Amino acid sequence: MTVAKKVRGFISQSSWIRKMFEEGNVLKKQYGSDNVYDFSLGNPSVEPPVEFKKTLMQIAGEDSSGIHGYMSNAGFLDTRKAVAEFIGREHDVPLSADHVIMTCGAAGALNILFKVFLDPGDEVIIPTPCFMEYRFYVDNANGIATFVKSKADFSLDITAIGNAITERTKILLINSPNNPTGKVYDEASIRELNELLEDRKKAYGRDIYLVSDEPYRDIVYDNTKVPSILKAYRNSVTASSYSKSLSLAGERIGYLAVNPEMTDIEEIVRGLILYNRTLGFVNAPALMQRVIARIQGVKVDVEEYRRKKEILCNGLSSIGYQFIKPEGTFYLFPKTPINDDIEFVRALQKKRILTVPGSGFGWPGYFRIAFCVDDATIINAMAGFEETFKECSQ
Amino acid sequence: MTVAKKVRGFISQSSWIRKMFEEGNVLKKQYGSDNVYDFSLGNPSVEPPVEFKKTLMQIAGEDSSGIHGYMSNAGFLDTRKAVAEFIGREHDVPLSADHVIMTCGAAGALNILFKVFLDPGDEVIIPTPCFMEYRFYVDNANGIATFVKSKADFSLDITAIGNAITERTKILLINSPNNPTGKVYDEASIRELNELLEDRKKAYGRDIYLVSDEPYRDIVYDNTKVPSILKAYRNSVTASSYSKSLSLAGERIGYLAVNPEMTDIEEIVRGLILYNRTLGFVNAPALMQRVIARIQGVKVDVEEYRRKKEILCNGLSSIGYQFIKPEGTFYLFPKTPINDDIEFVRALQKKRILTVPGSGFGWPGYFRIAFCVDDATIINAMAGFEETFKECSQ
Repeated sequence: MTVAKKVRGFISQSSWIRKMFEEGNVLKKQYGSDNVYDFSLGNPSVEPPVEFKKTLMQIAGEDSSGIHGYMSNAGFLDTRKAVAEFIGREHDVPLSADHVIMTCGAAGALNILFKVFLDPGDEVIIPTPCFMEYRFYVDNANGIATFVKSKADFSLDITAIGNAITERTKILLINSPNNPTGKVYDEASIRELNELLEDRKKAYGRDIYLVSDEPYRDIVYDNTKVPSILKAYRNSVTASSYSKSLSLAGERIGYLAVNPEMTDIEEIVRGLILYNRTLGFVNAPALMQRVIARIQGVKVDVEEYRRKKEILCNGLSSIGYQFIKPEGTFYLFPKTPINDDIEFVRALQKKRILTVPGSGFGWPGYFRIAFCVDDATIINAMAGFEETFKECSQ
Repeated sequence: MTVAKKVRGFISQSSWIRKMFEEGNVLKKQYGSDNVYDFSLGNPSVEPPVEFKKTLMQIAGEDSSGIHGYMSNAGFLDTRKAVAEFIGREHDVPLSADHVIMTCGAAGALNILFKVFLDPGDEVIIPTPCFMEYRFYVDNANGIATFVKSKADFSLDITAIGNAITERTKILLINSPNNPTGKVYDEASIRELNELLEDRKKAYGRDIYLVSDEPYRDIVYDNTKVPSILKAYRNSVTASSYSKSLSLAGERIGYLAVNPEMTDIEEIVRGLILYNRTLGFVNAPALMQRVIARIQGVKVDVEEYRRKKEILCNGLSSIGYQFIKPEGTFYLFPKTPINDDIEFVRALQKKRILTVPGSGFGWPGYFRIAFCVDDATIINAMAGFEETFKECSQ
């Protein structure tokens, strides 16, 4: 056996999201793209804003030397300043460039973060349903992921989180707006988390860090506010990216912002910069750093996603699907009409509708629909959603 | 203590290259950029070729939808095809898209490779002098780096490598053209490596994989040929990037090419794609993938580096510095006129000349000069190189 023992296991339990995406690509070759309804991957359909393209063209055309070269591993100072200023204002926290590290997306951000915080065996608590790739990120740092079920309405179960904390707990990782549910954790629950973590700190004599993965922060509906964890809790870090807010998922540009009040902040930041380099990222892509520095605050037209959400929710609701309307993200997470979510997703696949079973998010009996697709895909898939629902309800 | 125990140690022994680069930035603020002679970092001074800029502008201006979105974790099929075709021809090995994975530079490539190949405690043999970041990459995969000294002329010491192989050796990592020496390992030594590894396979009953990190392959002088390890040895992998050949170090675009004849190739490739995703890279930056697909074979004008090399070598030689002329790369690795290379580098720093001590490459008593700088920097630094040489020789 050549590959590491762990790898073999990981390959076999690999991501349902990517599995469905790759299977979808096969179906598309067979039936043509227009005849496959691909709701598998959170790959933004809405094009990047015009300001992005304009700025990209501008910078690509500039004659400044070394524009594509190395910079400090934390990123360009100008970019970090621009990000710090904008999100500092957004979160109402006094951030400077020293508190921001540019990363290869939020996935890169979380990987370096875990490397810096976790000694082997340290625990990361993660509420489910959640993006299951977190488990790999934690494992990369030799940590242990502890999954805690949320309540039936997908809000945080603070009591269950409290019960899961041990003397090895180092990080609580939340994701709000949440993938796959679209849930936004409200002010009250973030306040309760703060109290819980402060309380456990007293009990165990060590800090528990609250990490918020929030690439969907800008994609919310009906004036939903996403509470700031940087504002709410001293030992907090925000990991984010422009993958969704600017539709740049393939460009790998994101950041980490650490709370200026954090315990041991200098050593932590030095560690994050070190691992941004040594995990192989070296730095966030140079050109994209320059672009986003000039368009802070610009985001995709959320109205597009709102419209898609309404078409999808109205359609599924009238068929009889049960779900909680998402407050943010471009995901819907309905109950499957039969208990076995994998069987149900396979049934949908026979109608050339690609979705992801809830089991892939630690939440069987549900399935995820990524509605970041053309309106036509949603509309044309509705017949298949209905047929499958009826077949399963017989 | 908040950060993981290991991190604290790593921060303190962190890269000499980056240390000198960051200290140089401080000096530049103090004395002005023109008065600091920064030879610390391998950050290409030669601008990307015009074809690059033209293609970048073209693609950035195109209206194709989803151009900045996710793709398969291995990269765009078109890009992988283009790379496979070009390097397949260059190495005279029948490569297809299935053998190429687009990565975030060569650093990203090596990190995912080690994750896939190494069980905890598996060993990677690395000849010195070498780029010391390798040690972090191996550690990230819980492997053990075994360093083996090369000969005095920086050629591989095959006997020493043979002696270092144990039943836990999984990978032999070479870097040719070599950073920091500029050495290119010749056909004969690659052939000897092949024999050695085949022989040890028989002894231990398991394959040893030969990995070649070769971002400097295109930067060679006097018609030097870089032998292909893909051609020479069955169980081989090439890790490379466009950082140096196209002066795109900050853009993080590179690739892994695996030998089609490799043992367990399917599982290895699946593992590499998995870890490209789960280590947080997700995929190599989308826009750069599209650009390099269209300009395979284009490279920076090596004549520029040749000229700089000559100016530097002639200048230092006439002062009395001793060195072996580099066959490739944009590095020169002279002996320090005193034994203590760190003291010597500090003495140069007092003349505002930034270099990196050989200790940072596992090779004390030498120092590295990265001559990927303006001609003027080399010419104007010569007085300081001379003064320091004389002061130290007293």
